[in-house]
Amino acid sequence: MQEGQLAQRLNKVETSAIRELFKLLGKPGIISFAGGFPDSALFDVAGLQTASQQALAQEPSAALQYGATEGYQPLREQIAQFMQAKGVPTLAAQDLIITTGSQQALDLIGKCLIDEGDKVIVEGPTFLATIQCFRLYGAEVISAPIDAEGMQIDKLEQLIIEHRPKLIYTIPTFGNPSGATLSLERRQRLLALAMRYQVLIVEDDPYGDLYFDAPPPPSLLALSAQIPGSRDFLAHCGSLSKVLSPGLRIGWLIAPPALLAKAVMCKQFSDAHTSTFAQATAAHYLAAGHMPAALAKVRKVYAQRAQVMMQALREELGDAVAFTAPQGGLFLWLRLTGANGKLTDAAELAKRAIEQGVAFVPGAPFFSQNPDPTSLRLSFATVNEEKIREGVRCLAKALA
Amino acid sequence: MQEGQLAQRLNKVETSAIRELFKLLGKPGIISFAGGFPDSALFDVAGLQTASQQALAQEPSAALQYGATEGYQPLREQIAQFMQAKGVPTLAAQDLIITTGSQQALDLIGKCLIDEGDKVIVEGPTFLATIQCFRLYGAEVISAPIDAEGMQIDKLEQLIIEHRPKLIYTIPTFGNPSGATLSLERRQRLLALAMRYQVLIVEDDPYGDLYFDAPPPPSLLALSAQIPGSRDFLAHCGSLSKVLSPGLRIGWLIAPPALLAKAVMCKQFSDAHTSTFAQATAAHYLAAGHMPAALAKVRKVYAQRAQVMMQALREELGDAVAFTAPQGGLFLWLRLTGANGKLTDAAELAKRAIEQGVAFVPGAPFFSQNPDPTSLRLSFATVNEEKIREGVRCLAKALA
Repeated sequence: MQEGQLAQRLNKVETSAIRELFKLLGKPGIISFAGGFPDSALFDVAGLQTASQQALAQEPSAALQYGATEGYQPLREQIAQFMQAKGVPTLAAQDLIITTGSQQALDLIGKCLIDEGDKVIVEGPTFLATIQCFRLYGAEVISAPIDAEGMQIDKLEQLIIEHRPKLIYTIPTFGNPSGATLSLERRQRLLALAMRYQVLIVEDDPYGDLYFDAPPPPSLLALSAQIPGSRDFLAHCGSLSKVLSPGLRIGWLIAPPALLAKAVMCKQFSDAHTSTFAQATAAHYLAAGHMPAALAKVRKVYAQRAQVMMQALREELGDAVAFTAPQGGLFLWLRLTGANGKLTDAAELAKRAIEQGVAFVPGAPFFSQNPDPTSLRLSFATVNEEKIREGVRCLAKALA
Repeated sequence: MQEGQLAQRLNKVETSAIRELFKLLGKPGIISFAGGFPDSALFDVAGLQTASQQALAQEPSAALQYGATEGYQPLREQIAQFMQAKGVPTLAAQDLIITTGSQQALDLIGKCLIDEGDKVIVEGPTFLATIQCFRLYGAEVISAPIDAEGMQIDKLEQLIIEHRPKLIYTIPTFGNPSGATLSLERRQRLLALAMRYQVLIVEDDPYGDLYFDAPPPPSLLALSAQIPGSRDFLAHCGSLSKVLSPGLRIGWLIAPPALLAKAVMCKQFSDAHTSTFAQATAAHYLAAGHMPAALAKVRKVYAQRAQVMMQALREELGDAVAFTAPQGGLFLWLRLTGANGKLTDAAELAKRAIEQGVAFVPGAPFFSQNPDPTSLRLSFATVNEEKIREGVRCLAKALA
């Protein structure tokens, strides 16, 4: 194999930024705010054990044989019910397909829609793997600015007019890495923009169930019921990864029928279907009605950890950092203010922080354009409260 | 969504042929020789139940959390041992990655290697989903003729010289749909060609363990150890789907290090990783040492069914059909000879056969070029002996 034999699309993807992140994650014994994981100590192992045993005992051949590319029908029905309970009453099983994690839903969208040179608008900052996934299909990725209320719709409209994008990708609720949540009014305006400019919105919603106090505004998918015609310009990616278990690799894609049919075709040639073993297990778990209790538990723990982290940051770092309190999710997004001459380079801080025994991810790689070098992402999800306080003290030392 | 918004790559893929196949498969109450499935009645459900319970009890967080894109390390080690036992002694865990079925291995190869307009040589006939998968990445798929001993190497060399392909895809052992097995001498010549023309061979080997009487010739991967330098031009796709359970979606890719590294990068943006739940279950199953007994069982059953089907075909259809006896796998590949003025159009026969209560897949769609309209594929894997005899009688009626 020579380098020259590789496909040209690989030249589109910068791996160095990712490698840097992984280097930071790898060091043992360190307090890590770097991950994007849920806390495995919160997994409902007993519930999943029962579910998997039921799946194998009651329907061994469905759970172990090849299955439909669209997904295992009982799981599609359970997910439709799950979405109905989240304010999408008109959703039926045939409106969604099961994907191998929501990452595959993004990959299928890219494969179905993006031609070489197509423009795609994402939030600046956004989920790194989405940028790379779309670039592999030839996309030029444009960054739309966000503030505490998510994408700035006026500026987004200018970018749409200027670039005529193939699609707009957004994590409107408890965004990764920003933690920001798009306000209700902006959600309505975003759907109106989609219709006006006939551009597809891709709503990625892995975190929406992880709210702290009150539920977030309705998803774009739920809202689309109130804005006739808007559903024709909306794809929605969901996932059990953050709320039940990433290891199952169960995600789903809801999209206009023509796009969904093409996504099924592409999925057939990508992995034939998502593990029926994992799908049948998830279907039994959901059917047993465990989800509300499991969600209540993780919401409470993450809310508490977020509070502890914010309190510690205010006490230990004061005005050297600025952040908006997230209302849910896994992430806290900071800016280094430079107050009192303190460091403003988050990449440099990351190196010093490792030496002090704490890891986090600098924010710049999350931007497809115009990176903010003062930004960084902290995850509060996988560290207990005592270790959060200790980690923030290490961070303060690194900044001192 | 309008048609014009879809990516141009979708125009490369003809879905009508596939839809036709599925229509044939769907009819209930029919004796089906149409599937490409293993028999779910042969799955080791108890062994997999124990393995999944062990995985969840002993390492719940590894089985349910995000995992490495390369695969779950204990499974990589088990698969390396499995391959060592199949004559690849030098293979280590880091030489392979776990994929979501071997279909994903093919998809990653396409993504990493195929540029728009690249030529790819496959067997005529070959696995339909490979043709479509590669076409989605822009490949022009060239068909190399086969006979009872697999690809005709002289003709293949002419095609290599003429087309300078990016890769050559082959199922050298108990091919789908042909059932053919590449002879040892041709395997050696194929590896020599790869080196001479510096072209990658992709060996897809889902059926090699399903031999009837004697093991097949060593895989190209195993042989490559005897031909220094040839491993640099060889990728190997393996799978547990035909020998343990398709529903786990556990495949693997072995490839030169530079290609394997790029495949990992692409997989990260395709589905992040293969289900750790399925991977940990498979690792426990393999570690428990159940595989040799499970394989012995399915080999015996499939060998018996193949014998019964061939016997019935000779008795019921006589010289109206011609076939080479497969030495393993799931498939019998027939040609309608037209003897005594009988039908030679397999697509027409498929329609008549459905009316008589038996389904099979006509052969033409398996050819990327120059389809043979007299060919058809029968699977003997999922039907018991009595039903095989009955199905063949139906086929004889349809041909009468």
